Amino acid sequence: MQTIICLDLEGVLVPEVWHGVAERTGIDELRATTRDIPDYDVLMKQRLKLLNENGLTVDLIQEVISKIQPLEGAQKFLNELRKDYEVIILSDTFYEFATPLMAHLNFPTLFCHELIIEEGVIKGYKLRMQDQKKHAVVALKNLKFNVITAGDSYNDINMLREADKGVLFRPPEHIEKEFPEFSVITEYTELREFIDKNVA
Amino acid sequence: MQTIICLDLEGVLVPEVWHGVAERTGIDELRATTRDIPDYDVLMKQRLKLLNENGLTVDLIQEVISKIQPLEGAQKFLNELRKDYEVIILSDTFYEFATPLMAHLNFPTLFCHELIIEEGVIKGYKLRMQDQKKHAVVALKNLKFNVITAGDSYNDINMLREADKGVLFRPPEHIEKEFPEFSVITEYTELREFIDKNVA
Repeated sequence: MQTIICLDLEGVLVPEVWHGVAERTGIDELRATTRDIPDYDVLMKQRLKLLNENGLTVDLIQEVISKIQPLEGAQKFLNELRKDYEVIILSDTFYEFATPLMAHLNFPTLFCHELIIEEGVIKGYKLRMQDQKKHAVVALKNLKFNVITAGDSYNDINMLREADKGVLFRPPEHIEKEFPEFSVITEYTELREFIDKNVA
Repeated sequence: MQTIICLDLEGVLVPEVWHGVAERTGIDELRATTRDIPDYDVLMKQRLKLLNENGLTVDLIQEVISKIQPLEGAQKFLNELRKDYEVIILSDTFYEFATPLMAHLNFPTLFCHELIIEEGVIKGYKLRMQDQKKHAVVALKNLKFNVITAGDSYNDINMLREADKGVLFRPPEHIEKEFPEFSVITEYTELREFIDKNVA
């Protein structure tokens, strides 16, 4: 069977974007991510409220993101992986945020969501669909791919469960404890070995 | 809605691989492609018969393919496209043939098939699934993408029909005549305009 790899973006290939935004703006509550809050809608509504209360525009967020570099070793890992496998990045971020990150990663295919922006202000967001990571894995399995996935957060769990093989990559401790059914990997070399071993 | 672009490979981004093989080997019957023969199984069986009758190994085919360059302007078109859109290449070629071509194209995501190779001899091929191009478009539409496609051959027609928008890119005259429901585009700049115009 042919294998396709689905990877989460933040925490797996690039740092958590909102940590960067929190540091740049000094608003500590913006540090919360999908690693902390299981309900993405609650998380995003909280973020947008904080942005608007503090008059933060999409330009500022994009400026912060433009300075974010991939995690150490991520570019090499991903470039090598793409020579041998098809890869799709499944992320609950937004294209408006992700584009500068994709440039660093040599433009892999990315499935994510879109923001609603009016005159520079982020008015809301439009999920392409609920639980899109899981549904993408289902679709790829229906297209007769062997699907191997890696993620680190609450919003990755359904994707990991649905895949032929799923693994947690550098999860926070509470996620590791809450989902003991998944093995945990912390280095890209191990992740590559995990993938090579699970080719069907 | 978010837009994803599905492109055929041979004839759209790179030359017909089997034309190169025919020239290199002097076996003119190897020139036949999906542009000429609607039934892919008939076509591939004929190709494998000719390869084996002439003692041609996978190494030789790969050597020919390693010298094939993308069509003029294809790299620039695709690189620019990937800055603004998600792109998946849908091809009925085989990973064993396509990898050197993908290197020239900066490793876009490719859905195709696999060969069955034993001791350097191509024994057969394994379609990942029948009519995979069409099924990929169906899957992407179910994932709530607006799907725009371009192809040039019989095996692209179902993909073009299934997509939200489909266009023939540099088709041979008989395909253009047989499927008058599709517009025809011959230049990458036009193809880019067609895509930009059909964003939902």
